[in-house]
Amino acid sequence: MDIQVVNAMNYEEFVNVFGNVVEACPMITAAVWTDRPFTRMCALEKSIGDFIDNLPRSGKEGILRCIPDLAGRDLLRGTLSLESQGEQSRAGLTSLTPGQRSQLSELNASYKNRFNFPFVICARMNDRDTIIQQISSRIRNSPEHEIKLSIEEVKKICHLRLLDIFNQVPKAIKL
Amino acid sequence: MDIQVVNAMNYEEFVNVFGNVVEACPMITAAVWTDRPFTRMCALEKSIGDFIDNLPRSGKEGILRCIPDLAGRDLLRGTLSLESQGEQSRAGLTSLTPGQRSQLSELNASYKNRFNFPFVICARMNDRDTIIQQISSRIRNSPEHEIKLSIEEVKKICHLRLLDIFNQVPKAIKL
Repeated sequence: MDIQVVNAMNYEEFVNVFGNVVEACPMITAAVWTDRPFTRMCALEKSIGDFIDNLPRSGKEGILRCIPDLAGRDLLRGTLSLESQGEQSRAGLTSLTPGQRSQLSELNASYKNRFNFPFVICARMNDRDTIIQQISSRIRNSPEHEIKLSIEEVKKICHLRLLDIFNQVPKAIKL
Repeated sequence: MDIQVVNAMNYEEFVNVFGNVVEACPMITAAVWTDRPFTRMCALEKSIGDFIDNLPRSGKEGILRCIPDLAGRDLLRGTLSLESQGEQSRAGLTSLTPGQRSQLSELNASYKNRFNFPFVICARMNDRDTIIQQISSRIRNSPEHEIKLSIEEVKKICHLRLLDIFNQVPKAIKL
């Protein structure tokens, strides 16, 4: 998709196309529409990143709390967003052994108990093993450090979702 | 629902129950969970209001852009949130004459063209006639004033949705 196509969108088209680049937070996409025109994809990405960085700590935690658990009940029930479904599937999280699933589920529960938000990692830059490694290690971080790391992961996920949209043929986008 | 029940919820239960008190913005609900415990419903309401007030102008516009048009295509298609569906229906927007529907649709289009967000009003405190009156008058406001008024309406909608939840018998809530 060309950036001119993006800049010509009204806010409804823009939210339809980009509304889930930050999972379950269409408000953020809808907010950065105000920053149009964008010179290129990375300018749009920077607007989103700046908006997130300027939120208070509770707002960042709010973003994290809207992200579904890795290999959690949404994956099992098929109620994940299309984007999350694809990402978790490619990371091998749909084909965990029962042992791996219960290990990840226990680690997730401990993580949420400690930080009050779910473990967030860019699944497409990882696989089952590195995800389990990372959660086991990150659970020992301070809350402040962990919010920072998790928001960086949100930005990586957002980057890859933006790339997907920009690489699509415009006709494939339902406005 | 008792405030103690609310304060005992983990963030997932809290977002399940309160996630749509600001339409399509579960991130805001998820953010204010951080402010627990709440002394009473109005303390939770104040947390939400303060969070919104502290957003930059683009963030406030983002909230408004996530709200569906009154008597718009989501109502016709049946894709409104349950809360919006009930509110628009009670305001008589499901039983407009073709003439009223086309008048409201034209006013909405002009309003969105001027402000780049949809006309937002607490439908439950209005009816067909006052809604058409209000949009015809508010369209002449400055954008700054109109954002302010619209956010006040968002807070009224939030207040009534919170009241609905607090008046429900706890057992009726699906956690």
